[in-house]
Amino acid sequence: MAPTCPGLLLLVLLVCGLQHHVHSGQVLVIPGEYSHWQNMRVILEGLVERNHSVTVLVSTASPTVNFTRTERFHLKRFSVPMQKDDMNAFWDDFVNFWKYQRIGTGQQVLAKSMDMVASFKSYISVMCKGLLGNETLLEELRRSKYEVILTDPFTPCGDLVADALDVPFIIVLRSTFGFILERMCGQMPTLPSFVPCNPITATDQMDFTERLFNFMNYFMHSAMFLLNMSRHFDNVYSEIRGKPTSMCDIMGKADLWFVRSHWDWDYPRPFPPNFIFIGGHHCKPSKPLPADLEEFVQSSDDDGIVVFSFGSLYKNLTVERRDMFVSALGQIPQKVVWGFAGERPQTLPANIRIYNWIPQNDLLGHPKTKAFITHGGSNGLYEAIYHGVPLVGIPLFADQPDNIFILEKKGVAVNLDLYHMDSDDLVEGLRTVINNPLYKENIMSLSRLHHDQPMRPLDRAVFWTEFVMRNKGAKHLRVQSHDLNWVQYFCLDVALFLSSVAMLFSWLTFQACGLCIRKCCWKKHWKRKND
Amino acid sequence: MAPTCPGLLLLVLLVCGLQHHVHSGQVLVIPGEYSHWQNMRVILEGLVERNHSVTVLVSTASPTVNFTRTERFHLKRFSVPMQKDDMNAFWDDFVNFWKYQRIGTGQQVLAKSMDMVASFKSYISVMCKGLLGNETLLEELRRSKYEVILTDPFTPCGDLVADALDVPFIIVLRSTFGFILERMCGQMPTLPSFVPCNPITATDQMDFTERLFNFMNYFMHSAMFLLNMSRHFDNVYSEIRGKPTSMCDIMGKADLWFVRSHWDWDYPRPFPPNFIFIGGHHCKPSKPLPADLEEFVQSSDDDGIVVFSFGSLYKNLTVERRDMFVSALGQIPQKVVWGFAGERPQTLPANIRIYNWIPQNDLLGHPKTKAFITHGGSNGLYEAIYHGVPLVGIPLFADQPDNIFILEKKGVAVNLDLYHMDSDDLVEGLRTVINNPLYKENIMSLSRLHHDQPMRPLDRAVFWTEFVMRNKGAKHLRVQSHDLNWVQYFCLDVALFLSSVAMLFSWLTFQACGLCIRKCCWKKHWKRKND
Repeated sequence: MAPTCPGLLLLVLLVCGLQHHVHSGQVLVIPGEYSHWQNMRVILEGLVERNHSVTVLVSTASPTVNFTRTERFHLKRFSVPMQKDDMNAFWDDFVNFWKYQRIGTGQQVLAKSMDMVASFKSYISVMCKGLLGNETLLEELRRSKYEVILTDPFTPCGDLVADALDVPFIIVLRSTFGFILERMCGQMPTLPSFVPCNPITATDQMDFTERLFNFMNYFMHSAMFLLNMSRHFDNVYSEIRGKPTSMCDIMGKADLWFVRSHWDWDYPRPFPPNFIFIGGHHCKPSKPLPADLEEFVQSSDDDGIVVFSFGSLYKNLTVERRDMFVSALGQIPQKVVWGFAGERPQTLPANIRIYNWIPQNDLLGHPKTKAFITHGGSNGLYEAIYHGVPLVGIPLFADQPDNIFILEKKGVAVNLDLYHMDSDDLVEGLRTVINNPLYKENIMSLSRLHHDQPMRPLDRAVFWTEFVMRNKGAKHLRVQSHDLNWVQYFCLDVALFLSSVAMLFSWLTFQACGLCIRKCCWKKHWKRKND
Repeated sequence: MAPTCPGLLLLVLLVCGLQHHVHSGQVLVIPGEYSHWQNMRVILEGLVERNHSVTVLVSTASPTVNFTRTERFHLKRFSVPMQKDDMNAFWDDFVNFWKYQRIGTGQQVLAKSMDMVASFKSYISVMCKGLLGNETLLEELRRSKYEVILTDPFTPCGDLVADALDVPFIIVLRSTFGFILERMCGQMPTLPSFVPCNPITATDQMDFTERLFNFMNYFMHSAMFLLNMSRHFDNVYSEIRGKPTSMCDIMGKADLWFVRSHWDWDYPRPFPPNFIFIGGHHCKPSKPLPADLEEFVQSSDDDGIVVFSFGSLYKNLTVERRDMFVSALGQIPQKVVWGFAGERPQTLPANIRIYNWIPQNDLLGHPKTKAFITHGGSNGLYEAIYHGVPLVGIPLFADQPDNIFILEKKGVAVNLDLYHMDSDDLVEGLRTVINNPLYKENIMSLSRLHHDQPMRPLDRAVFWTEFVMRNKGAKHLRVQSHDLNWVQYFCLDVALFLSSVAMLFSWLTFQACGLCIRKCCWKKHWKRKND
């Protein structure tokens, strides 16, 4: 239904919605950076289309939320004692951590881990105090009477802003490591036996060893979180609120969780009713390419083109790795459109064109596109699924290895390692996904599932944001386990009570039997004596 | 959105759908009886509207699926060695069991329980063998090439028909006692700490004692099912399939579970992605009343009317209880429209009219309606929520006590006991829900939540049925825990392995320490000796 006439449906939804909404709502947004900002922006555009007034709250050090293009949102900045360069460096360190995991020694990985945790703690403190420590800003925000707050947990303390302003809020995220926030603060029930923990090491069909590793993966994440990060968070939250506060208590007040994933791609798992899956909400039909690019693409004839991009955050391709890519891509019959903002090689094979920025969605939707070389960010992957383009995944950091792992297992991607691959691997990978028809068939199956939804994911996000505004929250979707501690949650107190009762009962029975036996023996003894 | 222009939305969905579907699909339905058939029929009508060919498969003893009105479905019967009267008597016994629970002695309740379990076992065998033991029927069904089967588990073995025909299937249900089928066969994760078990004894906010009872409630249901019913089911399934078969293995293959409930009313709980909540799918705007009824209703002036019905299954109102109702209803200022097929009293107060059948939905949607006296069947309750009418609930059997319990706790119903109430209780109950404005406010809040959904529940049911037809199932929504046994599901093998490793490690450490100490002491001893 959805894919055949989404325009018409949207029109009706829009008309119905305008009928329903006399007033335009006030939306406050605390977005993440880089690709997180890109996909948050799509929801905001959907809200502006529906006549809502959207205010984006970003730090003065934000490297990406800069509104260089014509945007229809208001911008409000909060001061932090950081510069853009510091923030860029912070995120670069974050990206490079994964590099060390692949090519570093154990000692280097450990040192980098410690550095990263320390950086994150400092980042959390700086951002939270920047957001909440400025009473003038808070007063200004209070006066604006926002009806809903959308917040990305990668910019921490958005939930605390919602708490301070007493406004219902929605958390927008792809997923956190070990589903830690979803589990600990969002009450998503997760069983290690069939829900693979990210970073993923197995599919949802696990043998004993895989379940063992998955179990330990969950355990390690929970332990690290409880012993380290959550304590830091709790301290920051307590300091700001001036009373003992747990982060999960505040974050758990979220009315809704928008999860940028769905079952077209992700492994199915149980979830609470206030989790709304909006994976692929940013996908849209492709527009025509600029004339020169279209000409280049058309010149590929039947061989078609390969689209290549490592996304907005990754900038650190070495000259050696860049030349490896050039050498590989020069060997394939396809034309290559490469989005790459780094230093370009002096000479390029005729079939390759490099651009600082490429219209990725329009290229992926082009009928000549045969494959997509990607770092595996969820935005790009969903565009590939939407348009049905098989992938060569070269995951770099964060959820990307997981994303490519899942898609490799679904038979739509070849998985390569940036630091250990050579040009032959890339040529072979591209040949596989382009020439083996199974890859195209499989990605078309995922694409059909993605399109076959009762409602477009973006419409879902907009509907539920408006729902929260209309109903001043969505508390009826929030499970009551938020108010339980873990002893109560797992009914350990009940189990202890019942075992005690059972033990007491057994002891009494045992005593009673003992008494009977003794009495019986004594009777016999007495009888024998008297006989 | 939905409440303001559902017609327009439906039109677009219809047009889009017709665009999408060149062929009309073949749907096979194995419905339940009484109200279960009423609400299944609504889905079937939705499917017929979309040009699908619907075949309803019922036993020759079916008391209610009789197509007396003009229907647009095909009817196919399977023979069972029972008569309609036997079936009616069977369901009467089922209803009366609850009566004994309220007014019987412990001995009577136990005897009735044993009778009912025996009756159910016999019913299961008869229905399953009727459906699956007739090779001619199965061959005929196979030739029809159905694309999806809708089955109500209250007519058992629909899943086995789907298995025999190798057709994807959808289970349609409100809920089972102790969520037994949803948990055991549908993999719904349920924690006793915040998910009240039906029969319900507490809300989703439980103190220790309530959690204890809820825990034991789950335990009892699980034990009874595993030790009794499921073994009988497994035997019947194994006999029919000619090889060892567990019912849950077959039922667990369901592509989707349509649950006739939603969070507008029910307590929120986690669920797997293939559970689709369609509560209130049968609700629709009211139509004008027949002239004489409208005249009677209008004659109520500002006092308005009270609608009274005990549904299609309950027929056993005693003369004494009937007269108690007449006596109570004669005292209220409202006019009363009573649907009652039993023996009527010789004289009736002027404000009461009794009809064999009443247009319940049209009456509940009438602006003059002030309250609804109901047995608490989910169909009627959803109609009351849809139209925003407060309730006096007099639950009789099955899920009805739970339904009324939940609505009482939400402040929209007064809960009475048929066997212990008197006419004053009813008069007082009606006064409360009519005159205390909180009841109307609360039911209007539920009504707003019910209407404020991205899609009408019926459209959701139709969309997902067609989804299964289009995609030959919905396996991507089915969690992989179906393939695990309970040791694997709870990772008990993993826990055992890890504890063994931990114990072995402790033992080795202990031994090593012992060795060190012994060596150390021996050294000292040797040194002292040598000194």
